[in-house]
Amino acid sequence: RTLRIGLIPGDGIGKEVIPAGRRILEALPASLGLKFEFIDLKAGWETFQQQGVALPEETVSILKSDCDGALFGAVSSPTTAVKGYSSPIVALRKKLDLYANVRPVKTVVSAPKPIDMVIVRENTEDLYVKEETTRDTPDGKVAEAVKRISQRASSRIATIAGEIALRRQKIRAAGSPSIHKGPLVTITHKSNVLSQTDGLFRSTAREALAAPRFREGAVAVEEQIVDSMVYKLFRQPEAYDVIVAPNLYGDILSDGAAALVGSLGLVPSANVGEGFAIGEPCHGSAPDIQGQGIANPIATLRSAALMLEFLNEEAAAAKIYAAVDANLEEGKLLSPDLGGTAKTEEVVEDILRRL
Amino acid sequence: RTLRIGLIPGDGIGKEVIPAGRRILEALPASLGLKFEFIDLKAGWETFQQQGVALPEETVSILKSDCDGALFGAVSSPTTAVKGYSSPIVALRKKLDLYANVRPVKTVVSAPKPIDMVIVRENTEDLYVKEETTRDTPDGKVAEAVKRISQRASSRIATIAGEIALRRQKIRAAGSPSIHKGPLVTITHKSNVLSQTDGLFRSTAREALAAPRFREGAVAVEEQIVDSMVYKLFRQPEAYDVIVAPNLYGDILSDGAAALVGSLGLVPSANVGEGFAIGEPCHGSAPDIQGQGIANPIATLRSAALMLEFLNEEAAAAKIYAAVDANLEEGKLLSPDLGGTAKTEEVVEDILRRL
Ligand SMILES: CC(C)[C@H](C(=O)O)[C@@H](O)C(=O)O
Ligand SMILES: CC(C)[C@H](C(=O)O)[C@@H](O)C(=O)O
Repeated sequence: RTLRIGLIPGDGIGKEVIPAGRRILEALPASLGLKFEFIDLKAGWETFQQQGVALPEETVSILKSDCDGALFGAVSSPTTAVKGYSSPIVALRKKLDLYANVRPVKTVVSAPKPIDMVIVRENTEDLYVKEETTRDTPDGKVAEAVKRISQRASSRIATIAGEIALRRQKIRAAGSPSIHKGPLVTITHKSNVLSQTDGLFRSTAREALAAPRFREGAVAVEEQIVDSMVYKLFRQPEAYDVIVAPNLYGDILSDGAAALVGSLGLVPSANVGEGFAIGEPCHGSAPDIQGQGIANPIATLRSAALMLEFLNEEAAAAKIYAAVDANLEEGKLLSPDLGGTAKTEEVVEDILRRL
Repeated sequence: RTLRIGLIPGDGIGKEVIPAGRRILEALPASLGLKFEFIDLKAGWETFQQQGVALPEETVSILKSDCDGALFGAVSSPTTAVKGYSSPIVALRKKLDLYANVRPVKTVVSAPKPIDMVIVRENTEDLYVKEETTRDTPDGKVAEAVKRISQRASSRIATIAGEIALRRQKIRAAGSPSIHKGPLVTITHKSNVLSQTDGLFRSTAREALAAPRFREGAVAVEEQIVDSMVYKLFRQPEAYDVIVAPNLYGDILSDGAAALVGSLGLVPSANVGEGFAIGEPCHGSAPDIQGQGIANPIATLRSAALMLEFLNEEAAAAKIYAAVDANLEEGKLLSPDLGGTAKTEEVVEDILRRL
């Protein structure tokens, strides 16, 4: 099978980590029977400055017509609002209907306090519909934004969360060591204040997760109000398996969870739709370290693996995860965000050796 | 001076901690020249079940006409939406125009990783305006909520945040030990996605904090995107002094910060308006431990002190803080949330002894 992968490095360290993602895919053992073709695509702040758009139409159309998946690096945002600029990753998620943002947060097995959770974030609506207006009043400006929650989007995100819980349980049952006994999905919302919007998310998710296949798979379902979820995330992170949340809470929770494993530089994500996935490291473009060759490539390598998982190439994904884990378990070649002194290049080489 | 204080225990452990708040006020040394009168007021889920409203008109009118301040315990919410029920504390904040929710999060000075920050949360708007609608579509239900951000509310919350930063610096300058060198206000928002609403919060807060008295007081101002704020909160909490945020982010951040100091049972808040303040522990009604007499009273005792601060009784507040800190520093009589075995009653007695 040949997979055609779009590469969208974006800005800053995106340009340093996406090449690492490409290299690990190219280095996968031939025995897997996978071939890759890569297509370089543009998006981001630099693109905006050159072309006047942050997400060129061409990038979208090539992804749609020519690619099986993609890797997205990171983009810089202007520090003050710039007319016509808006985040290309938010736009891509919507244009390609990548309705789920899947963010696994996991320590190495030998960690003193092991954590192994995945945050499944709705990726198309909530405040991210970006429908905003501003009006002048005698008291000054008043701006409003729409938070939209639909039954359809809530149902499909809860369903994929349930499926991810089942899949994780299957991997555990196959003998992979785990801190979890059984599959658990935690629905996060703020329905005590937002009874209609978050209330709809909550009730729809409950309903979707009551489907026979989840009950047969013994998927336990519980809820947490988002503020209390953040509290619990820090007090007992080991308790969580799959957390499903509307877009904005998912954004916040996944950064919080990343803090628990020591660095955003370790945390991957995949933007997942029907038959398409974009791997995307959770970190930003990090202008403070750009150009120094010290960005941690692991979030991107794991994002490449996660993309492969959602393209049904689980064996290839497992190889990448294992090589990354071996590098971390040994702990000799670590980038500065993890307290080491290794360059991006050295970390990548070490992981490639372990493939 | 006689202060008339409304007592609104609410539900669950609210009924166990509010009496503790009353006791500490009554036990303040006579030399302070303060007298208290207490008025018992109703609100909450039990009240809703008895009277059909969670916040009786009487409670609001007595607070408005007869009280200088109040202590609010906690209320339980129904687990599914109940027609006519809505959170009384959210309503109170709006009806009394208590525009600032001030949440100091602080470890004892001898803590291995000392933290000393205060989260200043806008308290009247954002998604808490609770303007929601639901419509049926061919694809199922779609619900929308309004997120409203005004220049007026953003300006006054940033202003009080700046004033709190100045006040904290003054206390430090007077010789109180501190981990902070100078005053710092961190503006939290998500203007990279919500350019109009959060953009307005951001620019208005910047402007308010550029006022001459803040510049003269050397108040440093910086910004964090909310997801990155949560990440930093957990990675380097010692760096933050005053964090100012719109309502919902403030809600989430303050629970996150509470996790850092070990228990929500330690964290107070005050809902502050012009000349009025309601102290409110950050924890909920905790039905799981209600009736056992083991709730941690400290969040409420500190909330009583915080209320006094905003009623310009700083000397009385300082007495309470010191007594609570002495109890925690000694660490002998701690409630179960802090790993101890003391009852609410015993913790209160110990703190009263130290007044
Ligand atoms: C850059 C920003 C628009 C984005 C988001 O909020 O989704 C980022 O924080 C993320 O989590 O991918
Ligand atoms: C109970 C709830 C409505 C409330 C809020 O969201 O403000 C609580 O979480 C708080 O922080 O006081």
